[in-house]
Amino acid sequence: MRKRDLLTPVGITIGFIMIMLAILSNGGQEGLAIFVDIAAIFIVIGGLIGSLFINFKFEQMKTVTKVLGEAFKKDDRDLPGLIRQFVHLSEKARKEGLLALELDLDEEVEDEFIKKGILLAVDGMEPDVIVDIMNAEIKAMEERHYRGRLIIEKAGEYAPAWGMIGTLVGLVLMLNNLEDPAGLGPNMAVALITTLYGTVLANLVFLPMASKLENKTEEEMFIREIIVEGILGVQSGQNPRILEEKLTAYLYGENSKEEDLHTDEAESHEA
Amino acid sequence: MRKRDLLTPVGITIGFIMIMLAILSNGGQEGLAIFVDIAAIFIVIGGLIGSLFINFKFEQMKTVTKVLGEAFKKDDRDLPGLIRQFVHLSEKARKEGLLALELDLDEEVEDEFIKKGILLAVDGMEPDVIVDIMNAEIKAMEERHYRGRLIIEKAGEYAPAWGMIGTLVGLVLMLNNLEDPAGLGPNMAVALITTLYGTVLANLVFLPMASKLENKTEEEMFIREIIVEGILGVQSGQNPRILEEKLTAYLYGENSKEEDLHTDEAESHEA
Amino acid sequence: MRKRDLLTPVGITIGFIMIMLAILSNGGQEGLAIFVDIAAIFIVIGGLIGSLFINFKFEQMKTVTKVLGEAFKKDDRDLPGLIRQFVHLSEKARKEGLLALELDLDEEVEDEFIKKGILLAVDGMEPDVIVDIMNAEIKAMEERHYRGRLIIEKAGEYAPAWGMIGTLVGLVLMLNNLEDPAGLGPNMAVALITTLYGTVLANLVFLPMASKLENKTEEEMFIREIIVEGILGVQSGQNPRILEEKLTAYLYGENSKEEDLHTDEAESHEA
Amino acid sequence: MRKRDLLTPVGITIGFIMIMLAILSNGGQEGLAIFVDIAAIFIVIGGLIGSLFINFKFEQMKTVTKVLGEAFKKDDRDLPGLIRQFVHLSEKARKEGLLALELDLDEEVEDEFIKKGILLAVDGMEPDVIVDIMNAEIKAMEERHYRGRLIIEKAGEYAPAWGMIGTLVGLVLMLNNLEDPAGLGPNMAVALITTLYGTVLANLVFLPMASKLENKTEEEMFIREIIVEGILGVQSGQNPRILEEKLTAYLYGENSKEEDLHTDEAESHEA
Amino acid sequence: MRKRDLLTPVGITIGFIMIMLAILSNGGQEGLAIFVDIAAIFIVIGGLIGSLFINFKFEQMKTVTKVLGEAFKKDDRDLPGLIRQFVHLSEKARKEGLLALELDLDEEVEDEFIKKGILLAVDGMEPDVIVDIMNAEIKAMEERHYRGRLIIEKAGEYAPAWGMIGTLVGLVLMLNNLEDPAGLGPNMAVALITTLYGTVLANLVFLPMASKLENKTEEEMFIREIIVEGILGVQSGQNPRILEEKLTAYLYGENSKEEDLHTDEAESHEA
Repeated sequence: MRKRDLLTPVGITIGFIMIMLAILSNGGQEGLAIFVDIAAIFIVIGGLIGSLFINFKFEQMKTVTKVLGEAFKKDDRDLPGLIRQFVHLSEKARKEGLLALELDLDEEVEDEFIKKGILLAVDGMEPDVIVDIMNAEIKAMEERHYRGRLIIEKAGEYAPAWGMIGTLVGLVLMLNNLEDPAGLGPNMAVALITTLYGTVLANLVFLPMASKLENKTEEEMFIREIIVEGILGVQSGQNPRILEEKLTAYLYGENSKEEDLHTDEAESHEA
Repeated sequence: MRKRDLLTPVGITIGFIMIMLAILSNGGQEGLAIFVDIAAIFIVIGGLIGSLFINFKFEQMKTVTKVLGEAFKKDDRDLPGLIRQFVHLSEKARKEGLLALELDLDEEVEDEFIKKGILLAVDGMEPDVIVDIMNAEIKAMEERHYRGRLIIEKAGEYAPAWGMIGTLVGLVLMLNNLEDPAGLGPNMAVALITTLYGTVLANLVFLPMASKLENKTEEEMFIREIIVEGILGVQSGQNPRILEEKLTAYLYGENSKEEDLHTDEAESHEA
Repeated sequence: MRKRDLLTPVGITIGFIMIMLAILSNGGQEGLAIFVDIAAIFIVIGGLIGSLFINFKFEQMKTVTKVLGEAFKKDDRDLPGLIRQFVHLSEKARKEGLLALELDLDEEVEDEFIKKGILLAVDGMEPDVIVDIMNAEIKAMEERHYRGRLIIEKAGEYAPAWGMIGTLVGLVLMLNNLEDPAGLGPNMAVALITTLYGTVLANLVFLPMASKLENKTEEEMFIREIIVEGILGVQSGQNPRILEEKLTAYLYGENSKEEDLHTDEAESHEA
Repeated sequence: MRKRDLLTPVGITIGFIMIMLAILSNGGQEGLAIFVDIAAIFIVIGGLIGSLFINFKFEQMKTVTKVLGEAFKKDDRDLPGLIRQFVHLSEKARKEGLLALELDLDEEVEDEFIKKGILLAVDGMEPDVIVDIMNAEIKAMEERHYRGRLIIEKAGEYAPAWGMIGTLVGLVLMLNNLEDPAGLGPNMAVALITTLYGTVLANLVFLPMASKLENKTEEEMFIREIIVEGILGVQSGQNPRILEEKLTAYLYGENSKEEDLHTDEAESHEA
Repeated sequence: MRKRDLLTPVGITIGFIMIMLAILSNGGQEGLAIFVDIAAIFIVIGGLIGSLFINFKFEQMKTVTKVLGEAFKKDDRDLPGLIRQFVHLSEKARKEGLLALELDLDEEVEDEFIKKGILLAVDGMEPDVIVDIMNAEIKAMEERHYRGRLIIEKAGEYAPAWGMIGTLVGLVLMLNNLEDPAGLGPNMAVALITTLYGTVLANLVFLPMASKLENKTEEEMFIREIIVEGILGVQSGQNPRILEEKLTAYLYGENSKEEDLHTDEAESHEA
């Protein structure tokens, strides 16, 4: 089971605490009540949902909660462990043959994508066909993630627009009722609250979440590319040291434990 | 006949209901009347039409209603069925020969694009030529969809601009008639209504629709790429299981019924 | 001689009529006079010309009127006729040899680009060289059109900026003369007029025209790519039916008379 | 020595005259004095320099004046002359051998890039190596120009931001001193002047200059690509007529004297 | 140890001095106090941190200070020295064999990337494998830098948004307390200060720093590409003169000492 990514709820909490502090320091406790406006919530959230309903298919809309949940989960891949696993698989394949890999597959390999790749390799498929099938899956994963993320991104675009629509509605109503100068300020305040809601939703919730999901997809794709590289190396019976060297070169961008790996490399040169 | 996509009208209705609720809750029933302004409708819609007339050719303008209608229709492709169909065609071609496919083509295959591909394969054309011709058609479809969608996208760009033009016209007129302070508010309210119209049109109608049409085009292109892959597999007499594996890998991005297909795959490995 | 594209002047006229209607309905006939301001025209148009002078070379600036004129002209290519022409040329080349094409070239072919391609083919140049030379010309055309269009696009960018500059100048002057409260409104109105001019120029004139010119260039490039395809087919002595099939596949994106062509295709399959 | 590009100073002058006319027509001669504000100049120019110092290295900052000067110079390449030169070199190489080109190189060829290419060709280097070395230089030139232009582009981005910062500073100060209603207008006017400065600097100076420099780089790269094509043609002993045909095809995008060249082509076909 | 890049702190200092001068010249010394507002600092910085926490993983957030520090450091590579080094290595490899390079590697070569490349070459790996491994490292470096820079870029996006959120909060509170007209101005001033903070943070700190880091990454990648080119030349035993010529062609874009190198080239032609 994947761990929770605490940074997402912590970040949202920090953002809201900052807004509340700003309200309390300037407007006192009664100031907080001003900022809760049911009608404003309705027009921003409701209008946003309306735009998203037009923008997406029902099947996609159903995935929203799952996609949002994804931003609260942690994907920590053990990259040096991944490379060690491929070095191990490569050594085993050279000693006992490719077919030996299939036997203990379920105990040794947890990741479904690696399993599938090894099964294809053991089945004796051509390297080109393996690359084709595995890349098709990577591309499909990217596409699927992109479609999920797109809903959050579009929500980040429509939210400020609906904030502005709410403000315009409020301003038009206020300007038609100028007889009561005492109500002028509070009415305009209410009008501005929708813009505030739209801006906060976009910049504290939707845009950072969409950006985090994009980072996660890029990372996962990067790791899967290393896996494809590794599967091919195992199948072709490549020297485990060269395979390690290659996969390690990719790793540099992902991990700061470069030093530890450097020493391994040095050894492999001496060997 | 294609089913209606209910989400588009539902989304538009939700959006307008939210705006009406916001008006009613703040301005009461008489508030609604303020927001209907014939002159504002004229300048935003009329000006928008003017910009679009300059931007597009007459032939393109005529397709607008068809393109808009497209956003209200559903394209549900039965993807597992598509793959089953190719597995079936592939098996039949291996048993009875490619020519056998032509006989029951009209009963077995509904999709015009698949039919055309099979006819080209049966005609004995080179795989390269088939790919060329079918890709030319995919590219032409993309181009055709793009041109239709572009009108909606541009409408989404020009609508807020015309809203702003209307507001500027209203403000200039109002500022020249400051003698009557009582009319100041309502006049400014009228001026702001065009901006409201432009923003709502863009963010509730044009932009989400253009985005939905783009999603649909991407999906259709993706499916047609699978079809080309399938036609080539059928023509080359590829093993139906490998063909299924390949097409299924593409499918992952499209369908959440991955689990069901996983079992099929497992069987194919055991076979 | 090319026909006039009526949509461009019609669109501009509709836009201006809408603005005038909005003025008349709110401000009456005397309202119209407020919106004509010589100083505002000077700063928006003059400043725009200044920015364009810095941005472009004199040779490019001279082409502006020609480029603008292009947006008022119609390019109607007879696409089915183009394909029929290539089928005819292909049949003739197969019957009477490639050299026969040169004899009646001027009567049979009007388009300079097709003529040049056929002369290159008749001269016995290698297909690669023909593609190189013809693509160099297509790229050069794209580049030339792009440079012309760029002026209009940049005008659409600078116009709102100069509108804003004019408004800022007006506001600064007004704010220094607050003693006369009666003049406040009209002075601010005058200041806003430059923003109105800039926005209308950009959204009713420059941006839609630049977009139309871009569409036209894309269309012409698309047609020239079909022509290159056709010339190569004619030179290589390709079967006229296959050539027609190929060129028709491209055509789908351009023409809604697909049905008529479908029947032709059907015949070609029966033949 | 290169000629001066008069359009750049003329454009800047036109822009400033338009602004002055707008000021004079609305505010009279005393209006002009309002628009010169030392503090505003300091914050916009000084802040802009601060942002650029952070953004670029010292070596790049030193090139700014050279890069700006570039926008005031004219690059007129004699394109038909360039083609004639290559036809001449090609004829000479076919008659007298490649080595003959080296003898009169300094008299016949002025351009350093062509000289270098011919020396490489005469040295008997492989065409691939020549293309590699010359493309590396074209890429390096593009990179060098890009880095110089980037400073101007970034200046065009930071200038309006600093204008806004100045206006915010002015507004905050003004709002803290509302006791004196007479000073309200002039103080707000002063605050707006920085926004005016930032907008004018960006839209009349930096953005058009950066765009002109980009156009110039594209043109120079285009010409150098033709030169590489020409050098290869000369080295391979290609027929001077075919070489002319090829280079002329590129030329179409650059020069409106197509007609003159068309006649040359016709001759080459008759020959 | 790398030298400090003085331009970054100097630029930030200039920016703040300019803002202070603007405040002092208009508002006097007491004006400065107005611009320090603890609540405003909290909402802009705190909210920004909240958005970044959601946007990034904890591992990435920890690198922020290191990445920011990077913008204060200088990377001066001695490019002519780099080329001289490769010419030397190439000569040595031709005289004494590739293996000789390994012996004095640590004394002669300081750069880790060059060392790794030479070790791979000495190990007798295929040129393709060397290019693969070294490019994987370059790509990994680009990716790592990109992820660090992205935090700064996103900070530059969220800062103005949080400035606007603070201003909206302040305006809403102010509009609810219009009874005290004396407090109107100062309250609005306080509201605007957050927008000022957000704009200054974005345009004086985050955006220029992110842009500088991007320039540095591009430069480093460019140099590493030259290094890969050099390693391959050394391994293949390429003529040191041709190698120098090739690497020098790349150099043009990086260094203004072109003249000095030109003379070297001339010699190499005479040789």
